[in-house]
Amino acid sequence: MDATIDIDADSLRTDIERTGDFGSVDAETGLGRTALPADDANVRAREYLVERMESVGLDVRVDAVGNIAGRWTPSAGDPNAAPVVAGSHLDSVPRGGIFDGLLGVYAALEAVRAVRDSGVAVERPLEVVSFTGEEGTRFADGVLGSSVAAGELSVEDALDLSDGRVSLGTALEEAGFRGTGRLDASEWHAWLELHIEQGGHLEEAGVPLGIVTDITGTSRGHVSIDGRAAHSGTTGMHARRDALVAASEFVLNVEETATEIATTGTGTAVGTVGRLNPEPNVVNVVPGNVSMRLDLRSVDQLEIDRQVRAVETSLDDLEHEHGVETSLDIPYEIPPTRLSERVRDTVETAASRHGVETLTLHSGAGHDTMQVANVTDAALLFAPSTGGYSHSPKEWADWSDCAVATRVLAESLALLASNTEQHHTYE
Amino acid sequence: MDATIDIDADSLRTDIERTGDFGSVDAETGLGRTALPADDANVRAREYLVERMESVGLDVRVDAVGNIAGRWTPSAGDPNAAPVVAGSHLDSVPRGGIFDGLLGVYAALEAVRAVRDSGVAVERPLEVVSFTGEEGTRFADGVLGSSVAAGELSVEDALDLSDGRVSLGTALEEAGFRGTGRLDASEWHAWLELHIEQGGHLEEAGVPLGIVTDITGTSRGHVSIDGRAAHSGTTGMHARRDALVAASEFVLNVEETATEIATTGTGTAVGTVGRLNPEPNVVNVVPGNVSMRLDLRSVDQLEIDRQVRAVETSLDDLEHEHGVETSLDIPYEIPPTRLSERVRDTVETAASRHGVETLTLHSGAGHDTMQVANVTDAALLFAPSTGGYSHSPKEWADWSDCAVATRVLAESLALLASNTEQHHTYE
Repeated sequence: MDATIDIDADSLRTDIERTGDFGSVDAETGLGRTALPADDANVRAREYLVERMESVGLDVRVDAVGNIAGRWTPSAGDPNAAPVVAGSHLDSVPRGGIFDGLLGVYAALEAVRAVRDSGVAVERPLEVVSFTGEEGTRFADGVLGSSVAAGELSVEDALDLSDGRVSLGTALEEAGFRGTGRLDASEWHAWLELHIEQGGHLEEAGVPLGIVTDITGTSRGHVSIDGRAAHSGTTGMHARRDALVAASEFVLNVEETATEIATTGTGTAVGTVGRLNPEPNVVNVVPGNVSMRLDLRSVDQLEIDRQVRAVETSLDDLEHEHGVETSLDIPYEIPPTRLSERVRDTVETAASRHGVETLTLHSGAGHDTMQVANVTDAALLFAPSTGGYSHSPKEWADWSDCAVATRVLAESLALLASNTEQHHTYE
Repeated sequence: MDATIDIDADSLRTDIERTGDFGSVDAETGLGRTALPADDANVRAREYLVERMESVGLDVRVDAVGNIAGRWTPSAGDPNAAPVVAGSHLDSVPRGGIFDGLLGVYAALEAVRAVRDSGVAVERPLEVVSFTGEEGTRFADGVLGSSVAAGELSVEDALDLSDGRVSLGTALEEAGFRGTGRLDASEWHAWLELHIEQGGHLEEAGVPLGIVTDITGTSRGHVSIDGRAAHSGTTGMHARRDALVAASEFVLNVEETATEIATTGTGTAVGTVGRLNPEPNVVNVVPGNVSMRLDLRSVDQLEIDRQVRAVETSLDDLEHEHGVETSLDIPYEIPPTRLSERVRDTVETAASRHGVETLTLHSGAGHDTMQVANVTDAALLFAPSTGGYSHSPKEWADWSDCAVATRVLAESLALLASNTEQHHTYE
């Protein structure tokens, strides 16, 4: 089988580079782009994808929330069989890189083309999907289109989401990408997403392909500490209720707890205070208030829960020791996702047929695959990041690694589509 | 003597309230104002002061940097004798209170008027002075006019100072307050400034008047910590160089060092990180850089030096333990100021004649008196703050306390001006 599926590495590279040009930004190093959901750069990327899907001969449809799907039904196959689907997303963070999302979409397109042109016998339809709004930079906190496809979010609620000026429905309408119906991931036989790692494990190990076992769960919170603003010259050390001193202890507690859990547990726990704002934030005033954003993750929900309890204890201690008032709100909680063993095994088989070494690892970042995995068997593949950069113009992947991963993806799609056995039970 | 010098408490209050109306701001509690050097509110305050000085019969002059002086020469006195001078400033911080500066100017005006009308025999001229730009909110970092009067800053350099749009010279010219010559504090026999405490010692002790022995020295620094920005999900705890974690240790070190020195030393040491800005400061990115502003004070320069050495050691430790790079710059260093024993003793005598209890204490905030004390004998008096508020519309002082302090100020001026003995050597 492996001799017959040929990947066109140049075509893959061209598609990613062309799409990277839409919304490209100045950067000292690397190639950067800004393409927020339904903005001009994103619409041009969508138009280019539709054009490319059609030129490859796929049947294109756009659903009500702007998810784009391109299907190839093998002539010898069953057009009503559950399809094998691969893809990712076309949107980016502000000043993001050109691989995050784009690699998964165009690797899927090239893989489907290669399988079709190979003449390998497949029975199930193959489909390429680009989800709307994965990054969470506009309209929602992330994984927008895949939440709708997984039935977690209704089409109506999604269309009503606003960026403060305009609703998603209106923005898609104006962009010409408000279609009809709803892409339903529960009808898929399997889903595969190839993504850049956004970390350093593959590069460090010298392995060209990662197979993800688990996607981290994430809890995000708002923390506020209220002390008393006071003149930094006339307020003695013992008379202070310095909100920044209390917040500093909090930051260290978060870091120590996560490090301890990471050392003793699954090794995937991370805890971060990424945002911290003192008030009034001037040189000669003892800070009266500090607001913070907290990000706690692990592939094991119990390890997230342990971090949350440590945070609560830390804030209680600060109230007693520093005379401050604290508040904690955790409105964003996504549980960890275990990925399909069946699909992972298939990818392993495909990789070994091509002599491609693989590394199993977890994903510390969220992906559309989290949503899809709730309703069908799903896998997530990683191509190595050069230097581990992410959400930056410095984000990079070797083109040869991209081609290797795309070859394994194509082989995996062919294997998964080669029989019409019943849909596997979810794990 | 004490029976003959009568303070008009209503006039003092009216002058402060009227001036507080210029640039008044909305505040839930208290009375606030914004009057930056040479802005509209400050110019109206200046015009009102000149008008009041003239109505009291003082000879008014404005020097090249906008310092305003109003002199009364007693008919029986020596017009060429070194004058006894009192005053403060008319500018405010943004959303400051109505006592900071204004109390010192109008207490001086009312004291001079009361001495003149009392018929008490004085030989030296008495002068009321309002210095330009004490607060450091425009054109300079503070004590602008008094630096020129003390010969620390030349008239030319002062006039060239810019707020980014306009020079001080041009702004004063347009406001009609660019005069000629230079007020020379080294020619004064003595200087007295009455100021609101901006702290809680007098209120706590239930004492209506503070006599300041020392004004704190202040060293202010810029601290920068460079780590590595990284994805908070994909970067393990051990792979991080989190600039905010390092900065949090730094904040705690500054606080611990100052507390230790304050406990064992003069009791006046304070150390504050008032400003802290992480970059990029978003929830899902490990902070790559943190910049901070540092404020270290004590009445003992050695205690400031100890704090600076502890800061340097802390940054060295952070470089070794966290793999971060750090930088420290301390461009602002004002040494502690010891105030004149002679003038303080005179104030004590004046207070005891009126049965006014006093408390000797230090000033944790800087004042124009710091500059004047470099070139002549100077004293600083405090009226009690209600609630200790400072640089806020909540700043407050009892009007009766203001009147008591003004009475002691008037008595002190009369005592200091009652003979023409040679100028005392500086301490």
